[in-house]
Amino acid sequence: MTEARNVNVNKYVIGVDFGTLSGRALVVRVSDGVEVGTAVHPYWHGVIDASLPVTGAALPPDWALQDPGDWVDVLRTAVPAAVANAGIDPADVVGIATDFTACTVLPTTSDGTPLCRVSGFEGKPHAYPKLWKHHAAQGQADRINALAHERGEPWINRYGGKISSEWEFAKGLQVLEEAPEVYAATERWIEAADWIIWQLCGTETRNRCTAGYKGIFQDGVWPSKEYLAALNPGFADFVVDKLEHPLASLGDRAGSLTAQAAEWTGLPEGIAVAVGNVDAHVTAPAAQAIAPGQMVAIMGTSTCHVMNGTTLAEVPGMCGVVDGGIVAGYYGYEAGQSGVGDIFGWYVDTQLPPAYHAAAAKKGLDPHEYLSKLAAEQPVGAHGLLALDWHNGNRSILVDHELSGVLIGATLATKPEDIYRALVEATAFGTKVIIDAFEDSGVPVDEFVVAGGLLKNTFVMQVYADVTNRPLSVIGSEQGPALGSAIHAAVAAGAYPDVPAAAAAMGRVRRAVYQPDPNRAKAYEALYAEYRTLHDYFGGGTNDVLHRLRRIRNEARA
Amino acid sequence: MTEARNVNVNKYVIGVDFGTLSGRALVVRVSDGVEVGTAVHPYWHGVIDASLPVTGAALPPDWALQDPGDWVDVLRTAVPAAVANAGIDPADVVGIATDFTACTVLPTTSDGTPLCRVSGFEGKPHAYPKLWKHHAAQGQADRINALAHERGEPWINRYGGKISSEWEFAKGLQVLEEAPEVYAATERWIEAADWIIWQLCGTETRNRCTAGYKGIFQDGVWPSKEYLAALNPGFADFVVDKLEHPLASLGDRAGSLTAQAAEWTGLPEGIAVAVGNVDAHVTAPAAQAIAPGQMVAIMGTSTCHVMNGTTLAEVPGMCGVVDGGIVAGYYGYEAGQSGVGDIFGWYVDTQLPPAYHAAAAKKGLDPHEYLSKLAAEQPVGAHGLLALDWHNGNRSILVDHELSGVLIGATLATKPEDIYRALVEATAFGTKVIIDAFEDSGVPVDEFVVAGGLLKNTFVMQVYADVTNRPLSVIGSEQGPALGSAIHAAVAAGAYPDVPAAAAAMGRVRRAVYQPDPNRAKAYEALYAEYRTLHDYFGGGTNDVLHRLRRIRNEARA
Repeated sequence: MTEARNVNVNKYVIGVDFGTLSGRALVVRVSDGVEVGTAVHPYWHGVIDASLPVTGAALPPDWALQDPGDWVDVLRTAVPAAVANAGIDPADVVGIATDFTACTVLPTTSDGTPLCRVSGFEGKPHAYPKLWKHHAAQGQADRINALAHERGEPWINRYGGKISSEWEFAKGLQVLEEAPEVYAATERWIEAADWIIWQLCGTETRNRCTAGYKGIFQDGVWPSKEYLAALNPGFADFVVDKLEHPLASLGDRAGSLTAQAAEWTGLPEGIAVAVGNVDAHVTAPAAQAIAPGQMVAIMGTSTCHVMNGTTLAEVPGMCGVVDGGIVAGYYGYEAGQSGVGDIFGWYVDTQLPPAYHAAAAKKGLDPHEYLSKLAAEQPVGAHGLLALDWHNGNRSILVDHELSGVLIGATLATKPEDIYRALVEATAFGTKVIIDAFEDSGVPVDEFVVAGGLLKNTFVMQVYADVTNRPLSVIGSEQGPALGSAIHAAVAAGAYPDVPAAAAAMGRVRRAVYQPDPNRAKAYEALYAEYRTLHDYFGGGTNDVLHRLRRIRNEARA
Repeated sequence: MTEARNVNVNKYVIGVDFGTLSGRALVVRVSDGVEVGTAVHPYWHGVIDASLPVTGAALPPDWALQDPGDWVDVLRTAVPAAVANAGIDPADVVGIATDFTACTVLPTTSDGTPLCRVSGFEGKPHAYPKLWKHHAAQGQADRINALAHERGEPWINRYGGKISSEWEFAKGLQVLEEAPEVYAATERWIEAADWIIWQLCGTETRNRCTAGYKGIFQDGVWPSKEYLAALNPGFADFVVDKLEHPLASLGDRAGSLTAQAAEWTGLPEGIAVAVGNVDAHVTAPAAQAIAPGQMVAIMGTSTCHVMNGTTLAEVPGMCGVVDGGIVAGYYGYEAGQSGVGDIFGWYVDTQLPPAYHAAAAKKGLDPHEYLSKLAAEQPVGAHGLLALDWHNGNRSILVDHELSGVLIGATLATKPEDIYRALVEATAFGTKVIIDAFEDSGVPVDEFVVAGGLLKNTFVMQVYADVTNRPLSVIGSEQGPALGSAIHAAVAAGAYPDVPAAAAAMGRVRRAVYQPDPNRAKAYEALYAEYRTLHDYFGGGTNDVLHRLRRIRNEARA
């Protein structure tokens, strides 16, 4: 038998996907990518956005923290549970890799101890990891951007002209300016993506993906000391003191599993640990979508778009372009929508009346399925509504986290399924804005591949096909990021020569599963034009009312 | 005792208020306006906006009809029930008067038989009364307005430059153009306000109020035959054939109660029947607010603003100014908001999640009370939201029923009480736009007096005081319109020489019950400025997206 000649038969790798609310471990067969077992562990503290666990102190608006202990708990519980679920011998596991939300970043001591675990810092909010959706550093981001443009920093247009308040520099500068004692005690400022690898292999590593997209590492250098000093004299040595470290490529072996981590996970000590990676980027190989022009949209609470390109272009409002940011040898482009499934969830959780919950339950559907079924029956435009999908800000192409949601066209006859459909459509319009921005910048988008939890909603998928007027391919795994991590683990373990080879053997995609309907696509053209007009009016500076409302809100709450 | 010398002691009048969903009868003591008994009868058919009762045929969007039998049922049930509730001898009742929603208008034969009761017309939607909120004649209204401006018709600026699609001419023209056979059979086109009086006293009368505000009777004449012919040749004789009739002043005696109506109501045959009136206008005397500059806002599902003035001015977007339209001797000004309580009701009915209903029930509050309590605790602007209150169109000052609601500023943290408060505030901003329009036109607003069902919501009242930065006076009766009708019945019965005298004896008001808070009023200034900007953007032609969305909606549904 041919399989008998494959050294990877009966060998396994572990991919661990650290999400916003939980971590998932997946056991994958090295030879063919078959998923043999999985387990999920919800974070005990979830998202810390109301008050600090230790002290109960209230957090200001727009804060979002996490507790690093929750992440280690995933290693201790989900990994052995997944292995048990798979029914394999742990001795057959040859490597482990992880992916993380990003930019989720934390201050640590030089040995990697999170500052929030250091005596005297437990009650300081700035000592905790800042989750990706911590949006309270917008003031710092604004200054970072203004100064970069003023000085003509060469890197700024690699990020669509804007560094996000979500990323390493804005969040770091916020710590310096709001909690100088925390900043002073911060010996390393490190992505959770890299921190978790430190926990697994015992040594600090830094990966090219987060260094490029969430740090500001471009063309082999970080932002200059002069630039940083001009932002804030105390920030001059931010890179040198807290960030700088040799960078590793995705799929590289970071090190070997320590005795401690082997004890946590039940895996063999010494197996390969891959360098850190990001949930979105790692999904591209899982979906076999790493050729230039294959855009992968990881659609969940938010959506991240990643795509390889052969040339370096500056796309307005993209999150970033990073050499080797997705796969070595290509320019990896990233864009994103900061609220997608989160918006639908917010609507269902806070605005769906009892009769709809009851009707859904009666049909054995969850409320999203029920609303999707009702909404799917409507002709395009029949609800008379139009929404802007900015309830969690706008990542691409406006890069403005202080925007907020808009809904126009409501009448006394407007029903929940109408609003639900309008919100779904708004997120699809948001995706189309991003695709258009890439193509207008000379970066063709040849295929649109969907991954992520929203895949299961066929109504949402069809709306996206109709709005973008493109066929939709879908990833062939329900655990795209974890599978992508497993692919990197296999490469780190030496089972494949590189990520493309591993992706070809272990990834899965179904091509053109959703086809656009020509009539619906045509009808959406008019609505998309309206969306663009409102997008530019509220987001492009014509009427800055959303910013003013937020300022008023923050002052009123202060 | 002084009372013994008062001929009105132990005499009573009946006021009947015909609302959108029910009719209410109120028994009032003539001498002092004390309310001694009341009863309500809900209309069996309610608002007919989905399908025609007889045939089940679906109605197009924006239609709203009623069944005239429901109105007669109020006379047959609510009037005797109110008398019984009062425990008085029906023989002591000396007069009856009514008020109605307007413009609610119907086609009848020359003897007053509603066309929908004529054989062969039962299945024709256009043969039914069109309720005030029937908004499907916008196309006709647009042409009425364009032509009036083109020809420089002298009356057009008496209506803020726009005749509403809700009114007699637009609705009549719609009948002609969509159902010529119904139009041909229409011998009288009559306000329900006058039709119900016809049922009570057996003869057709027409009152100055509806003729002026909802018809286009100004300076003693109707629109010319030439104008009507230019609209549509078949419409040339609309006035002559279907409208024209001597007009009676408010408080005049229309006639005497017929034997038939006496049998329906249980009241003495031959007692005084006052001429028809309108729910809003009749409330001004009930609130003792008939002096120039006293603006009465009747706040319920919608809000109507009425105020007497001593001079004739043209206020942009006002519904109308009519000589003697409220009280003889003054110019009666009217403005309005087409959705107020209806918007709050829509929100609670279709968007409030189960947890809020449960929490309200647990506290023994209805959901509006519960939301109001939560919303009242917020500082101004703390929700970060701004809404436009156009879910049922905009009556004043834009006079555009094809506008729709807007909500901006929503985030994933937005809660139901936030949206509820923003909707309440939006309606208060809408009121402020109206007050400002009057004052900017040289018609001072000296006092703001509130009547109507929303009075009971103290949170709503305080928001209005803060947004308008004015003290709010409130009517001293929970049945303002019915009390106002009763006042007119007393005048028609000869118990008082005129409406002001009757109002002084029978009306009730509490002055300056709600005081504006200076800090909140200041904070609202900024939000009001944002409201005005959006108001002008979406309603003033800068971006006609709301109209386009409605057109797309209507086409998609067709």
